[in-house]
Amino acid sequence: MEVGFLGLGIMGKAMAVNLLRNGFKVTVWNRTLSKCEELVEHGASVGETPAAVVKKCKYTIAMLSDPPAAISVVFGKDSVLEQLCEGKGYIDMSTVDADTSSKISKVAQATAVSTAITEVGGRFLEAPVSGSKKPAEDGQLIILAAGDKALYEEMLPAFSVLGKKDFFLGEVGNGAKMKLIVNMIMGSTMNAFSEGLALAGRTGLSPETLIEMLVKEEEGLGAVGNPMIMMKGPTMLKSNYSPAFPLKHQQKDMRLALALGEENGLAMPVAAAANEAFIRAKSLGLGDQDFSAVYEAVKAEGLKQ
Amino acid sequence: MEVGFLGLGIMGKAMAVNLLRNGFKVTVWNRTLSKCEELVEHGASVGETPAAVVKKCKYTIAMLSDPPAAISVVFGKDSVLEQLCEGKGYIDMSTVDADTSSKISKVAQATAVSTAITEVGGRFLEAPVSGSKKPAEDGQLIILAAGDKALYEEMLPAFSVLGKKDFFLGEVGNGAKMKLIVNMIMGSTMNAFSEGLALAGRTGLSPETLIEMLVKEEEGLGAVGNPMIMMKGPTMLKSNYSPAFPLKHQQKDMRLALALGEENGLAMPVAAAANEAFIRAKSLGLGDQDFSAVYEAVKAEGLKQ
Amino acid sequence: MEVGFLGLGIMGKAMAVNLLRNGFKVTVWNRTLSKCEELVEHGASVGETPAAVVKKCKYTIAMLSDPPAAISVVFGKDSVLEQLCEGKGYIDMSTVDADTSSKISKVAQATAVSTAITEVGGRFLEAPVSGSKKPAEDGQLIILAAGDKALYEEMLPAFSVLGKKDFFLGEVGNGAKMKLIVNMIMGSTMNAFSEGLALAGRTGLSPETLIEMLVKEEEGLGAVGNPMIMMKGPTMLKSNYSPAFPLKHQQKDMRLALALGEENGLAMPVAAAANEAFIRAKSLGLGDQDFSAVYEAVKAEGLKQ
Amino acid sequence: MEVGFLGLGIMGKAMAVNLLRNGFKVTVWNRTLSKCEELVEHGASVGETPAAVVKKCKYTIAMLSDPPAAISVVFGKDSVLEQLCEGKGYIDMSTVDADTSSKISKVAQATAVSTAITEVGGRFLEAPVSGSKKPAEDGQLIILAAGDKALYEEMLPAFSVLGKKDFFLGEVGNGAKMKLIVNMIMGSTMNAFSEGLALAGRTGLSPETLIEMLVKEEEGLGAVGNPMIMMKGPTMLKSNYSPAFPLKHQQKDMRLALALGEENGLAMPVAAAANEAFIRAKSLGLGDQDFSAVYEAVKAEGLKQ
Repeated sequence: MEVGFLGLGIMGKAMAVNLLRNGFKVTVWNRTLSKCEELVEHGASVGETPAAVVKKCKYTIAMLSDPPAAISVVFGKDSVLEQLCEGKGYIDMSTVDADTSSKISKVAQATAVSTAITEVGGRFLEAPVSGSKKPAEDGQLIILAAGDKALYEEMLPAFSVLGKKDFFLGEVGNGAKMKLIVNMIMGSTMNAFSEGLALAGRTGLSPETLIEMLVKEEEGLGAVGNPMIMMKGPTMLKSNYSPAFPLKHQQKDMRLALALGEENGLAMPVAAAANEAFIRAKSLGLGDQDFSAVYEAVKAEGLKQ
Repeated sequence: MEVGFLGLGIMGKAMAVNLLRNGFKVTVWNRTLSKCEELVEHGASVGETPAAVVKKCKYTIAMLSDPPAAISVVFGKDSVLEQLCEGKGYIDMSTVDADTSSKISKVAQATAVSTAITEVGGRFLEAPVSGSKKPAEDGQLIILAAGDKALYEEMLPAFSVLGKKDFFLGEVGNGAKMKLIVNMIMGSTMNAFSEGLALAGRTGLSPETLIEMLVKEEEGLGAVGNPMIMMKGPTMLKSNYSPAFPLKHQQKDMRLALALGEENGLAMPVAAAANEAFIRAKSLGLGDQDFSAVYEAVKAEGLKQ
Repeated sequence: MEVGFLGLGIMGKAMAVNLLRNGFKVTVWNRTLSKCEELVEHGASVGETPAAVVKKCKYTIAMLSDPPAAISVVFGKDSVLEQLCEGKGYIDMSTVDADTSSKISKVAQATAVSTAITEVGGRFLEAPVSGSKKPAEDGQLIILAAGDKALYEEMLPAFSVLGKKDFFLGEVGNGAKMKLIVNMIMGSTMNAFSEGLALAGRTGLSPETLIEMLVKEEEGLGAVGNPMIMMKGPTMLKSNYSPAFPLKHQQKDMRLALALGEENGLAMPVAAAANEAFIRAKSLGLGDQDFSAVYEAVKAEGLKQ
Repeated sequence: MEVGFLGLGIMGKAMAVNLLRNGFKVTVWNRTLSKCEELVEHGASVGETPAAVVKKCKYTIAMLSDPPAAISVVFGKDSVLEQLCEGKGYIDMSTVDADTSSKISKVAQATAVSTAITEVGGRFLEAPVSGSKKPAEDGQLIILAAGDKALYEEMLPAFSVLGKKDFFLGEVGNGAKMKLIVNMIMGSTMNAFSEGLALAGRTGLSPETLIEMLVKEEEGLGAVGNPMIMMKGPTMLKSNYSPAFPLKHQQKDMRLALALGEENGLAMPVAAAANEAFIRAKSLGLGDQDFSAVYEAVKAEGLKQ
């Protein structure tokens, strides 16, 4: 199977290498073209522009750093749209919001205002992933695909190489929404855990023991243990908040999830309380720390005389 | 090792059988003495009264149904105190609150008002367990011991038969408190999960897929997956709330945990919001259902026209 | 009209003087009898014991400092019960909880266990007041009466002297409950105001102007202005929290009101959030300050670098 | 003093009439020009377009229905900008958001991108009002001015006719922000009151009496009484929610105020809980009712069997 691949950052490079190792023919492009060289060593071809890649390949995967990059690769000069014709598929695996995804999608699906775009006839799939560098290298990502189902099915050979699990979630935007919901659960759960940890500390019980009880067992008291507690609990007790997922991003996702609830008529008072805790943590200067730093705001030990 | 065993309800019987199977000599007593017969078949001796059991055994374990039963076995006629003399150990594994535990403890440790009790000189260990019938039969309980540390150490051979894990948590009352904290985390986490599940439903995403994402993976998006979601998620989607842990008890534990926070100067706004959700669920007539029924109050589908 | 009056603290003295000035014949008693002298100058008679006062008077009003005092005056030696016979009325205007009130009531109404008390046949009215020293002196109290309605009606001449407004609220305990509800509204409203005040400050708007907008007007934007904001707003801006109503008492009332909601199946998430804010304020060492000091916890300026 | 007046809706007409009655020379314009006739009877001149009004008058007041109208009158054909030259003042008294206000302002102050606008040199004042038709007719509005201070001072003669009180709040946008904060306090206070009212009902106390206690008194228990409770309390008890301020707008303002808090690093957990209550009320179909209808969501009597 032959695929184009746009974007060779940490994630993109790992994914492209993975595809090459598993027998895919890959034509890569990166804004800084020199980054393509390492991929050439693994057997990749190089496209000079996004348009060149799309011209060559039936399927083009994008893994870009942020919404502006995702947008500019599609709409700019020498960009995807210049060559995306009838039948070609564009798969954006970047982490973008539902709006960005829809904007790209409507264009790619030729439903948008511009007549130029209507003629394109391309197919679109959003497919944000969960997982960082290591899972990307190991093909252990989780893929949240949404959009053109036939295209999703055609991409399964690639997804099975890139991820350990993939989901097809329906219409474009659903991938972003699902990720938001999972992050909201994560943020509230982190608060639930932080309050418990702080309460243990305040009542003279050992927070270390609490963590051990939560994560060492998978029955009874261990019912609410999860990998997040196992990973972050011990570092939280050391006030080590080296950021895996920055608190300010977690807070933003809480806000966006609450807005999604508002739009859909769902009150979520626990998430709302958790969101305010993250806001308090941000005001304590913890926005760039890991989201588990909300524990500092919860216990607020600095407040005690 | 020889132990007395008071209380042969579902849990107590399973635990006593377990001890007998592992070579312990066990003298049992139960309020309804006929229940002792099955234990006799497994090799147990029978004591006619709690006092008789304590007279015979250096260590007596109690596994009673509730605080009044736990109290009456210690303080009533023919009760534990009549024979609990210097050096003897009393291990209460019933699930009782910290106050009940302290009340029994002070007596057993001979620090209370009555001179009669001061002369007793007994040793006390609270050791509530986590786990239900099946873990009790399989020796897979989690034991939260607190009180007399030497007694705890002497009991380790029995604990290793009864449980897969035990903790010594310090002074009497700490076992009950720790259980409260874990239950508070559980209640808040259940709300976090329910809000996410309801939001998925409201936005047209599949709640089943959300559950699958949370519990099938142990990395990335699966970071907040836990056994509780794995067990209860699918039944919640079927509105099946056959009670494993009744919602009204969960709500009571939330309130007690919040009170513990108040006593210790810790604000816990997320637990407070979760508590109110459980109260709302109770007002919907769900108090006797499983605590996961809070999902009904969260989604409140009955409210939509 | 002739009344007995037990308790000559700040409030009781002002109330008794008021009654004397308005032509009532008053027989007073106080634990420290010397405090009666000033009242004698105003024309009062003195009773040596609560029993002596009750013996002499058909109606006895009590205004005692706290629940233990209220209890001991009724049940102790030389106490109210020794002389409270058929037809006599006992009016407790002390601020006590619903339980204390009920305990005194059941005795006074001769419905309690003791046969001695059954024979008493007394009548009981709880009548806690709202207002402090100044309104007491000026006869401007608000009286929340509950219990024996006929007795309430017989007491109206006295209530019209003592207060500017009185309410009959039904069965004993309702006075205390109503006061709790009003205090809960006050606590949540204080938080609403504090959040607004803090938000004005953070966004560079003048908190003084906000207060002026809220309290100077009685229409439009002034719709939520109230006497509490008018009185406390300006002192809050000066961080002056000289206690009129201590924050720890406000927080306790929030907790009791939430418990009342729980008992009656009513979720109150806003009060729950406000309660946690008061708890946070207590943990900042503000428990003995005025309840308006929750503003410090809300704005948490100390937290900013 | 001579002023232009754009927009003769319910509010604008009442305000323009007020100015005429007080000796101002007023040139009016309205999208539907026939509406100007009634004003002519009161002595007004008519301008054919916004541009014509601005050409004629040194000061032009606008009172338009919503942000799009406010924008189009400034930027469209024959609009304000065509004639707004150096020294002329434009006072927008419409209720618009801070962004709309800033957009108009930057243009009017000639700081925006377009060179055409830079040449304009106009002066701008935002001056949203609080109060509805009746206060507008009676000159009892509250005016929240922000922007060009000199212009504000020049407009005082007009403001003193239109309103009973005016505030100058600093830079453009502050008027809108202040209104948001006041509305947030109002929304939280409405929830505090609704919870109290519902709790009274659930515990068998009279909600009518609670209202009477809150609003009839201005001391003691009446400390939290306010005009909003006085006006809306009795109608809430009759489930009469004829909209003065629609619940969906109140909820939107809560969300915007929370966002303002988030931007400025201020956690507001009570407002967040209140916001969720309004969202729940919206999901019950109450969005178009008065914001006091949140009481229905709080008491949720429909939920009881």
